[in-house]
Amino acid sequence: MLTTTLIERKRGGDALTPDEWSDLIARYTADQVPDYQMAALLMAVMYNGLTPAELGALTDAMVGSGESLVFGDGVPPRVDKHSTGGVGDKVSLVLAPLVQACGLAIPMMSGRGLGHTGGTLDKLEAIPGFRTTLTLEEVQRQVEGIGVALFGQTPEIAPADRKLYALRDATSTVESIPLIAASIMSKKLAEGLNGLVLDVKHGSGAFLRTLDQRLELAQTMIGLGAERGCPTVALLTAMDRPLGRACGNALETEEAFLALTGEGPDDLMAVTYALGTEMLLLGRAADDPAEALLLLEDAITSGRAAEACRAILVAQGGNPRVLDDPAALPHARIMEVFEAPAAGLVEEVEPRTIGQAIVAMGGGRRTINDQVDPAVGFVITVKPGDRVERGQSIATIHARDTTTEEIARDALARAIRIGEGPADPLPLISHRVTSAGVEALA
Amino acid sequence: MLTTTLIERKRGGDALTPDEWSDLIARYTADQVPDYQMAALLMAVMYNGLTPAELGALTDAMVGSGESLVFGDGVPPRVDKHSTGGVGDKVSLVLAPLVQACGLAIPMMSGRGLGHTGGTLDKLEAIPGFRTTLTLEEVQRQVEGIGVALFGQTPEIAPADRKLYALRDATSTVESIPLIAASIMSKKLAEGLNGLVLDVKHGSGAFLRTLDQRLELAQTMIGLGAERGCPTVALLTAMDRPLGRACGNALETEEAFLALTGEGPDDLMAVTYALGTEMLLLGRAADDPAEALLLLEDAITSGRAAEACRAILVAQGGNPRVLDDPAALPHARIMEVFEAPAAGLVEEVEPRTIGQAIVAMGGGRRTINDQVDPAVGFVITVKPGDRVERGQSIATIHARDTTTEEIARDALARAIRIGEGPADPLPLISHRVTSAGVEALA
Repeated sequence: MLTTTLIERKRGGDALTPDEWSDLIARYTADQVPDYQMAALLMAVMYNGLTPAELGALTDAMVGSGESLVFGDGVPPRVDKHSTGGVGDKVSLVLAPLVQACGLAIPMMSGRGLGHTGGTLDKLEAIPGFRTTLTLEEVQRQVEGIGVALFGQTPEIAPADRKLYALRDATSTVESIPLIAASIMSKKLAEGLNGLVLDVKHGSGAFLRTLDQRLELAQTMIGLGAERGCPTVALLTAMDRPLGRACGNALETEEAFLALTGEGPDDLMAVTYALGTEMLLLGRAADDPAEALLLLEDAITSGRAAEACRAILVAQGGNPRVLDDPAALPHARIMEVFEAPAAGLVEEVEPRTIGQAIVAMGGGRRTINDQVDPAVGFVITVKPGDRVERGQSIATIHARDTTTEEIARDALARAIRIGEGPADPLPLISHRVTSAGVEALA
Repeated sequence: MLTTTLIERKRGGDALTPDEWSDLIARYTADQVPDYQMAALLMAVMYNGLTPAELGALTDAMVGSGESLVFGDGVPPRVDKHSTGGVGDKVSLVLAPLVQACGLAIPMMSGRGLGHTGGTLDKLEAIPGFRTTLTLEEVQRQVEGIGVALFGQTPEIAPADRKLYALRDATSTVESIPLIAASIMSKKLAEGLNGLVLDVKHGSGAFLRTLDQRLELAQTMIGLGAERGCPTVALLTAMDRPLGRACGNALETEEAFLALTGEGPDDLMAVTYALGTEMLLLGRAADDPAEALLLLEDAITSGRAAEACRAILVAQGGNPRVLDDPAALPHARIMEVFEAPAAGLVEEVEPRTIGQAIVAMGGGRRTINDQVDPAVGFVITVKPGDRVERGQSIATIHARDTTTEEIARDALARAIRIGEGPADPLPLISHRVTSAGVEALA
């Protein structure tokens, strides 16, 4: 079948057959379909969507374009977590060692910061010496050895996704629910998982703008996972304010280490425990949520979660001293307090503004080749609903120079709205989505 | 403005500004915008269309991407005709010398066969020695010298259109009314015209499938021409059967020469005269349709039209003997009669089947690099509504071998439907469209 005919049919609203998707993706990966034809097809998908059969065939073809992790019987069940991206979201850094300490294996492939959101790889790379670029073979060996690895997409995994994602980014065809779902699931399915938990962000800081889109993404990915032996559960968690207090790579890494030793902020711990509970249930390490929570809390209080983290640091070349001594992490030259400009109720801490400020301060990327300054960012110690006095310290700015300090100060002034109230933040965990349906939790 | 942002806005239904279109087309022509970004944008245009302001800016940018013909006061008014493409449509070959013989100048840029339709350049190239590849300077000198030139799109004219057209062809983004209109008008406006007549084909053999689309294309092009000093008029003519009797390059050229000497089939002459009338009125060579018709008929009976054709042949290297002696044109090895398989009424002569058969016989292109065999094709001597006897000769097949003769015979059997009637062919000329509106003629 001519590629132009496939484009024409998709453009006109027809579904392509699974074989056609399979053949198309194989030819695209082999550079036998030019980018301009794929770009036209992707734009047609933006308008016409994909049927479940098309989506499954596309995802399978993307998985099949590369290699997959395959684990033997000696390895515990594998689970992973994927977040749709937020501000202050350092959950992966806590969850990977924590869930491993509870007896499951975690081959956790993560990404970099995108737009206003941070990325786990950038946070890990704030740790002196830490290597995130592992080969597929290294990942396999490390998961078999210590039960957990934190790494970036390897060239072996879903090369079709890598190529398609770069093209979508350059052609404004990113925001399609089925294309997003296929991209994420193709990588997760290649990890050889027994279960996957999705953290779908909800609120002004989320990429997807409406609750309907967020639920649709969750259900689409759950459907894909269910049919492919990877049971998937999603939680919608609040991203109308940053998660935890620290925002910025090294600052967030430091907060994650605090969380692993039982000193994490309440909201971070609540989200971490909720996602961890789902992972333990999917991996059959616990029979019910209450048992799962006890296991997770015990892994932290016993020090086993921190030890699991130390094992990761040692395995991937990171300086393990960072676990005990925050001074071993990079620090910004300027550290200035931000005071509440008025007395009143904190009505909002708008995460998108915070995330954009971090990028402007050098802590994120405007283009793919930008260097990230790991040290810059914020520690924001108030949450919506808190009452503050005028002049009270409510945040710390970590900047590399006075110019970016001003940018940061201006962003905080815009992001933290103080007034007479009411503050109406979203419930921290608002919905649970499974193949059985959507359950509103709050 | 980032190209991705332009794509995103167009995708979302926004109109781009005229400056944005202008800048985008300039950068695309200069190879500063990759094909994959333009492909995504074109697909978004397929769904969202273009506003009149966008269409005008796109067309102007395409004209401005290259050079234009500019004529001095000594040259008569310039007029041209464009057809949306049909089967058996050799009108251009008759009209160019005929209208020149009536005192106007015709810088007629034509195209090649596309899909099931023939192209004027391919018909001209059936003439031994005839050169269709002229430089813009040669066109200018020839129009100044003998008042008429027949040529293909030169590299100097609308290079943006050439590049965009190739991309649209490869990405199934051809069938967009505004993109079609911009493509045609950008080339026509570069000819330095004082008027343009459109022959919009109507019926099963037309590219555009519905009357609404055909009228929309006519009105879109009329609007573009009106605002740019090139008054434009459109006629909708029947393409539910081939025009004239000959279908195939050399056969059609021969029929065009017959038409120039007064021996053309009635339907071909009627369409030629109707389009020629509009051209004479636009070029102010006649005050009313009756006067225009007299001028056209006189140019043929006096032999002046044939002499104008001879001048073109001489100027462009074609053997002028072809005008008087059909034997000077290429002929197919096989010439076989096709007989009516039954007695009855000719209900239909389906042109798309005929056109596709010519391609299959080697008389058209499947890919851009195919060589065209000018000699093959059909002479079909019946029209819908004719009564035939069983065994009566109703067509001649011109083929290069017995395999393609069989293809031809099979196509005729499918295309020429003989039954009890009724035959319900479209009126030969059904609508006249001007800036004042649509006039139904039949």
